[in-house]
Amino acid sequence: MSHPGATATDKHKVVIIGSGFGGLNAAQKLKHADVDIKLIAKTTHHLFQPLLYQVATGIISEGEIAPPTRLILRKQDNAQVLLGEVTHIDLANKTVDSLLLGHTYRTPYDTLIVAAGAGQSYFGNDHFAEWAPGMKTIDDALELRGRILGAFEQAERSSDPERRAKLLTFVVVGAGPTGVEMAGQIAELADQTLKGSFRHIDTTKARVILLDAAPAVLPPMGEKLGLKAKARLEKMGVEIQLGAMVTDVDRNGITVKETDGTLRRIESATKVWSAGVQASPLGRELANQSDAEIDRAGRVKVLPDLTIPGHPNVFVVGDMAFVDGVPGMAQGAIQGAKYAANIIKAELKGADPSTREPFKYFDKGSMATVSRFSAVAKVGKIEFGGFIAWLAWLLLHLVYLVGFKTKIATLLSWTTTFLGSHRGQLTITEQQAYARTRIEQLQEIAASVDEEKAS
Amino acid sequence: MSHPGATATDKHKVVIIGSGFGGLNAAQKLKHADVDIKLIAKTTHHLFQPLLYQVATGIISEGEIAPPTRLILRKQDNAQVLLGEVTHIDLANKTVDSLLLGHTYRTPYDTLIVAAGAGQSYFGNDHFAEWAPGMKTIDDALELRGRILGAFEQAERSSDPERRAKLLTFVVVGAGPTGVEMAGQIAELADQTLKGSFRHIDTTKARVILLDAAPAVLPPMGEKLGLKAKARLEKMGVEIQLGAMVTDVDRNGITVKETDGTLRRIESATKVWSAGVQASPLGRELANQSDAEIDRAGRVKVLPDLTIPGHPNVFVVGDMAFVDGVPGMAQGAIQGAKYAANIIKAELKGADPSTREPFKYFDKGSMATVSRFSAVAKVGKIEFGGFIAWLAWLLLHLVYLVGFKTKIATLLSWTTTFLGSHRGQLTITEQQAYARTRIEQLQEIAASVDEEKAS
Repeated sequence: MSHPGATATDKHKVVIIGSGFGGLNAAQKLKHADVDIKLIAKTTHHLFQPLLYQVATGIISEGEIAPPTRLILRKQDNAQVLLGEVTHIDLANKTVDSLLLGHTYRTPYDTLIVAAGAGQSYFGNDHFAEWAPGMKTIDDALELRGRILGAFEQAERSSDPERRAKLLTFVVVGAGPTGVEMAGQIAELADQTLKGSFRHIDTTKARVILLDAAPAVLPPMGEKLGLKAKARLEKMGVEIQLGAMVTDVDRNGITVKETDGTLRRIESATKVWSAGVQASPLGRELANQSDAEIDRAGRVKVLPDLTIPGHPNVFVVGDMAFVDGVPGMAQGAIQGAKYAANIIKAELKGADPSTREPFKYFDKGSMATVSRFSAVAKVGKIEFGGFIAWLAWLLLHLVYLVGFKTKIATLLSWTTTFLGSHRGQLTITEQQAYARTRIEQLQEIAASVDEEKAS
Repeated sequence: MSHPGATATDKHKVVIIGSGFGGLNAAQKLKHADVDIKLIAKTTHHLFQPLLYQVATGIISEGEIAPPTRLILRKQDNAQVLLGEVTHIDLANKTVDSLLLGHTYRTPYDTLIVAAGAGQSYFGNDHFAEWAPGMKTIDDALELRGRILGAFEQAERSSDPERRAKLLTFVVVGAGPTGVEMAGQIAELADQTLKGSFRHIDTTKARVILLDAAPAVLPPMGEKLGLKAKARLEKMGVEIQLGAMVTDVDRNGITVKETDGTLRRIESATKVWSAGVQASPLGRELANQSDAEIDRAGRVKVLPDLTIPGHPNVFVVGDMAFVDGVPGMAQGAIQGAKYAANIIKAELKGADPSTREPFKYFDKGSMATVSRFSAVAKVGKIEFGGFIAWLAWLLLHLVYLVGFKTKIATLLSWTTTFLGSHRGQLTITEQQAYARTRIEQLQEIAASVDEEKAS
């Protein structure tokens, strides 16, 4: 793979698809390699997904968790960041096509690292998406921020008790880390941040429902921590409904099927979907051109060296790759990226591709916050929860945030939110207002007039 | 006007339209009055407009200048904040109709304070708006942030020198405070913040053009300060074109007519409009039902007590009102709001409406930042510029920002931006990407393929 005496123009070309944990780390680990890196992503930013729920609930600004990728890589001369959505990968000709505003660009590669991540999965019911946005992008978070706060605004004006109840019922589907964090934060938003700022409604009476088809909260964290998180959420007033499978989602609510088969209806204007993930369609693109297989979630079943059969120069890392025992978390993507980068560097120095050591995942543990001062964490066999876990969560996330100023800004936001229940990012943009209009207009009867009495 | 022995249900009803400087201050000045206040606004936030350009150029987050109005008024029990766009005012029946998501609410008032502000004016050429967004709302700022940063992203990928030049040319129309601040900040963004983060383009070569039909920069600040600001901007590389009247704006650029009548074309993908303002259409609504007149900018020519003829209970304050010698700035709105609130309080206590003292505007001066460490200020006869003016500008705006945490967060953002050229809020959302797509798709030829060479 190495090019002895390579000149600036014929350096080994590494193309990376995606600017998430996998893509960014792959580029950074190749900083000192004699390669030409092109990182192609459909967003200009690197998203620190673990804190997305805090943008949705107004604790931090999008800038704090989504800095421009090109500024992170600014000083890395061998890397170029390109904005564009990859539409086609040609394994035979070793090129990647990406689209930017109607213009398609073809980029050649010697080595390809595919780290395009995963989107929300509605398990074949994509029409749920309009009524229950996922939590995968900055736009998802801003959309949900607008819907959550917008529901309170509408409830304040509505004189119809039924409609008000519907507007003050929030359903979070999926009791994984994101669902648990969203449910907890919506509850704190209603009970603390917004408390006393409305005159016709009592935000503390808002219902927050966290439901899942599974019988437990945070299944991967084990029964003990799951029960701990469940107890904490219930203490906060979150209604937890397990063994409840969602069969339908519409503008006015959600229908669930109980384990005994009975159907139940929940009237709710605001739904959040964090139930499943679907890998980038680029996985199928790879499978169609090789002997690689993809699983039900669209993940590529990669070889032990994270490449696809017949293409030792094509790595798949992060949420797009299925590797037994590797969870779809930041750590999996980061470690996979480092592994691929190290192989590229070694083989540029002449190492024999046939002697690649298989990828080994080192489980650094996992954690989830439930509410302020309360989190659960699992590190190997050690399980702990409560304040200590929360403190560990807080420090760890601060350390991983990109940029010193960002760490300070976020620490400041957390201080005021966790100590004072203040939230500095509750601004709704028209983008969200429009979204609400689009949805609500449909359910409104032809503009009727409410005679508003002085309170 | 007072209601002796008023009970909770028949308190004097004050309806305020708008959550800007006028509307918010009117509500706050009535805090201790025995009235029932309903503040109706079409956004959930109070916008601190003077810093909007810093959101557009990635220095601060929208949350820092657009906190929810209801949280600002949370502890003011006599005030209720309602989201809705006022569609009709009925002076005869003393009611206000507002629309929220297809639902119209009718709100009765005893006293009405109209402070709906002003939008951008394109002087009858509203079709310019699509290609040259204004700078009036949070959405305007985010839209422009997306277009400005998006232009650099597209230029990085484009292999066509002409298109690249067009993408790297930014035109700001209107050399008032907002235009001067935008031009200066786009220049600093290109020269400092983004410098070195692209590989195919040199952002410091970007052209920033500030043009105005008037012969001077910052006319209201006087010739001396105008020349000072002009010199500073030119030192930063901003091209200033005065006496240039915009005759057309399209997706690819702008056409201007020189003072000698010749037409000149400027190819530019990104245009910003800060040339004029148009008062809220509610002004006409009032004029249609009274003897009030409106000027060309749609402002209501109010009586000396800021009310309209025949309706001593209807005040118009801020950018919607035309009062000789009162500029369309925050101070005008704030002082008008205080004046109206004081009259309401006095007359609730029995004062005679016929003895109202006319509104007097106290000019606290005005200022504008040109770049970091450089501003111009005018206080009465005193004019000064440079670092001292900038420091005064900085402190004054910090003092006026709502909330302690916001002051700290903003100070932190300013420190890193002004001392280190770092900007923490450069995130683009899909909302903006879509806007660019909508615009750019049109000018793209059917998707052609660029063979991209390794750099």
